[in-house]
Amino acid sequence: MKTNPGRFFEDYRLGEVIEHAVPRTVGHGERALYHALYPARHAIHSSDEFARACGLPSAPLDDLIAFHTVFGKTVPDISLNAVANLGYAEGRWLRPVWPGDTLRARSTVIGLKQNSNGKSGVVWVRTEGLNQHEEIVLSYVRWVMVRKRNAEAPAPKVTIPELADHVAPTHLVVPKGLDFSAYDFGLAGESYRWGDYQIGERIDHVDAVTIEEAEHMLATRLWQNTAKVHFDATARDDGRRLIYGGHVISLARALSFNGLANAQMIVALNAGAHANPCFAGDTIRAWSEVLDKAETDAPGVGALRLRLVAVRAEAPDFALRGEDGKYLPDVLLDLDYWVLAPR
Amino acid sequence: MKTNPGRFFEDYRLGEVIEHAVPRTVGHGERALYHALYPARHAIHSSDEFARACGLPSAPLDDLIAFHTVFGKTVPDISLNAVANLGYAEGRWLRPVWPGDTLRARSTVIGLKQNSNGKSGVVWVRTEGLNQHEEIVLSYVRWVMVRKRNAEAPAPKVTIPELADHVAPTHLVVPKGLDFSAYDFGLAGESYRWGDYQIGERIDHVDAVTIEEAEHMLATRLWQNTAKVHFDATARDDGRRLIYGGHVISLARALSFNGLANAQMIVALNAGAHANPCFAGDTIRAWSEVLDKAETDAPGVGALRLRLVAVRAEAPDFALRGEDGKYLPDVLLDLDYWVLAPR
Amino acid sequence: MKTNPGRFFEDYRLGEVIEHAVPRTVGHGERALYHALYPARHAIHSSDEFARACGLPSAPLDDLIAFHTVFGKTVPDISLNAVANLGYAEGRWLRPVWPGDTLRARSTVIGLKQNSNGKSGVVWVRTEGLNQHEEIVLSYVRWVMVRKRNAEAPAPKVTIPELADHVAPTHLVVPKGLDFSAYDFGLAGESYRWGDYQIGERIDHVDAVTIEEAEHMLATRLWQNTAKVHFDATARDDGRRLIYGGHVISLARALSFNGLANAQMIVALNAGAHANPCFAGDTIRAWSEVLDKAETDAPGVGALRLRLVAVRAEAPDFALRGEDGKYLPDVLLDLDYWVLAPR
Repeated sequence: MKTNPGRFFEDYRLGEVIEHAVPRTVGHGERALYHALYPARHAIHSSDEFARACGLPSAPLDDLIAFHTVFGKTVPDISLNAVANLGYAEGRWLRPVWPGDTLRARSTVIGLKQNSNGKSGVVWVRTEGLNQHEEIVLSYVRWVMVRKRNAEAPAPKVTIPELADHVAPTHLVVPKGLDFSAYDFGLAGESYRWGDYQIGERIDHVDAVTIEEAEHMLATRLWQNTAKVHFDATARDDGRRLIYGGHVISLARALSFNGLANAQMIVALNAGAHANPCFAGDTIRAWSEVLDKAETDAPGVGALRLRLVAVRAEAPDFALRGEDGKYLPDVLLDLDYWVLAPR
Repeated sequence: MKTNPGRFFEDYRLGEVIEHAVPRTVGHGERALYHALYPARHAIHSSDEFARACGLPSAPLDDLIAFHTVFGKTVPDISLNAVANLGYAEGRWLRPVWPGDTLRARSTVIGLKQNSNGKSGVVWVRTEGLNQHEEIVLSYVRWVMVRKRNAEAPAPKVTIPELADHVAPTHLVVPKGLDFSAYDFGLAGESYRWGDYQIGERIDHVDAVTIEEAEHMLATRLWQNTAKVHFDATARDDGRRLIYGGHVISLARALSFNGLANAQMIVALNAGAHANPCFAGDTIRAWSEVLDKAETDAPGVGALRLRLVAVRAEAPDFALRGEDGKYLPDVLLDLDYWVLAPR
Repeated sequence: MKTNPGRFFEDYRLGEVIEHAVPRTVGHGERALYHALYPARHAIHSSDEFARACGLPSAPLDDLIAFHTVFGKTVPDISLNAVANLGYAEGRWLRPVWPGDTLRARSTVIGLKQNSNGKSGVVWVRTEGLNQHEEIVLSYVRWVMVRKRNAEAPAPKVTIPELADHVAPTHLVVPKGLDFSAYDFGLAGESYRWGDYQIGERIDHVDAVTIEEAEHMLATRLWQNTAKVHFDATARDDGRRLIYGGHVISLARALSFNGLANAQMIVALNAGAHANPCFAGDTIRAWSEVLDKAETDAPGVGALRLRLVAVRAEAPDFALRGEDGKYLPDVLLDLDYWVLAPR
């Protein structure tokens, strides 16, 4: 059989390096589509002139374009038979992606643990995105639960990687040349600077977007992510297409402009949970919480550690977890990340 | 609160200049999306070769891409709390927008009039779009009805700007270098030239398009227009998303190709009314009327003043106003503009 | 009347050459949209780096972008009043289309045959797509059934062109410079080379996609194909919009990546039938059959002749024709084409 059945749990070996297929050149077309698909307005990704005034040669592609493109490449090898996408850790953006860059991806298996039922197991991989100069632009760990092909296959030795609770501020990489010392708050859209955000502060981002089938499929295909469940209405018993979790990440991040317009560049992904499935027809809102703050060596550049939560419109304000500690049913995403903002 | 609540009527001061946020670099990606979103076929915006044969360095972006991009920038400051978009006047396209240009926008408050109920008022602004060379590419007046935050706030002095009924032909700006003396009517798609159109002539543009939610949202987001009512199905009591009036303008203009294929470039917006709201599921047709004609100094270039009317498919032919002088319920748009066509 | 009523059967003359309107510059924006609209992953169209490693200066636009753009130009002159698109033959891709190229199209009437009912007739045209250097990039024959305006109009002399059953391997044109001798199967996504495919072998491409109205309309408009029936829900009595047959071709070709990832470039279209109409809501699957194999003079490059069949998800495996020899009701497309693959 020449078609790809995807890998099963017993197909992964600790230390194995998987070179993912189909390199992709990304550019102005992908940027325009990103603006059509999400209400993205951060000025540094919107305007070459604004980016130049911040010390960059031109506007880099949105940090999440890099993430989705790299993630999409890993799907045929990592998550085609995944039961669940369990978590992210130690994600770092190491270099901007520029229009015209060609991205590819590779993953290293860094952990394996068969589930007690013997039918599936958890696979941890460190994925790296590389550009055409063989420079790593993005690195992150994710772990997924994957079915076994054959329940009789022997369990591998249990290896659970040690992962940082979050990326330490000293490990954040500021893009070369970035300089916020002449930052134009008027053009960026809001007057609040790094110093105006307090740890523990929460922001309701006000706006909401109702999702259509055509939109999430256009977005998911754009990243060459081909997981069947996003596109094929006959794949699930209920006839519904599950929305790619990354679509919710991009939507929530774009909505967070309203209140975090100066949170210009994502530099780290500390953790993330797709708390509940999202479907077309859902109306999405978002809120943020400031988790931590740090200084950087770059002129005028500070870092904010943020929690970004996406919820369905009907959720109560600042919804997160119930008394049982579990995510409330209308909570879709709980993301923990670092951004760069002007000081 | 760090999120933008929008401005209310009492926040505007006569003569105030508002620099709108988030400059935007536009290019080939936006052009491709424009062709996917609208049945746009005017050759000068479709082909670099055709544009060069008309004396331009390459195909400029569609004139309405410039309009929507500039308009979108003004929404957070001008129309976030608007009850209605009341009119346009004195719109002029002063320079083409080229792929790679970065656009920003500023508006000057030129008129204020509180409504007799004391709860809202009308604000007139002159909006200018600027490119990265600080050249004005577009200038137009629009007026909107805006709610008051506080009904007790004192009414401003009434100032109603004097606005031209329409842009005089002598004020039309022909793009530098434009030369229709070697115009290829075969490639443009129709044989009718400036001289073939008679004042009073009406054209039914024949084709029709049914609108989907995904399409108008993609379009509206592409211009970074974030007015809630276009995206959030929970914003209105009836659960319907109101379609951005500019989407109807672009759709009608594109449909008008069939009968006005040689009406290549929009150079002025004399007036415009969004006569009735438009919703997904509506099927849109368009008709035009030749209102006036003028010569220009550019070789082979004439100007046509056109009325462009968008209607729902079920409207009678050439539907406009009822016996009471009001727009018929299936009339969506009544636009008065100048275009350049080969003589 | 200034609008285009389309041509009727009696308007065509044998040997007549029709220069189609509206040249179009295509580029990175169209490529990005192609990736958003279809699950296209063939590496040579996805990555400039991969294309360079195959001897090309950069990634050419997908071969079907060329086809759709050229086809779209012919619609106003050839198929606006067509009752049916009857077939394709002798299609050859003669040169890649590069980002920035401007395409136009011309058709020559090569056959005419009035139907026995006297109300319609069959028109055969050879259509050529040309780039800005006046080089032919694509040439194919198609024939359509067209209504007569006036049933009394005299029948033309019957001329049925002699068409090749399929393009002979010696007539295939390999893009200049193409060299698969250092082909990277890992990056391409599958390990199967030309020699691994056997004549008669059939491949079920596994994946499926459910089609939305917004998607097929975006795609069809992108090629400036304005046939009313694709866009106007009021055009047919049943209120359904008929999906452009080329949308199904692109969807099936993209789905065929899974099993034919190395079938990189389409070089010939031997035949094609749109077996049944396709509508939004349909879920599409695809299967392929290897019909023939041939060598080429280019280093490492072989040719595969493939049948590509698109079916609705509910069709039986490898569905094609019933016992009566007619296409089964869930078969949508039966395409016969040549591709280039690494040896």
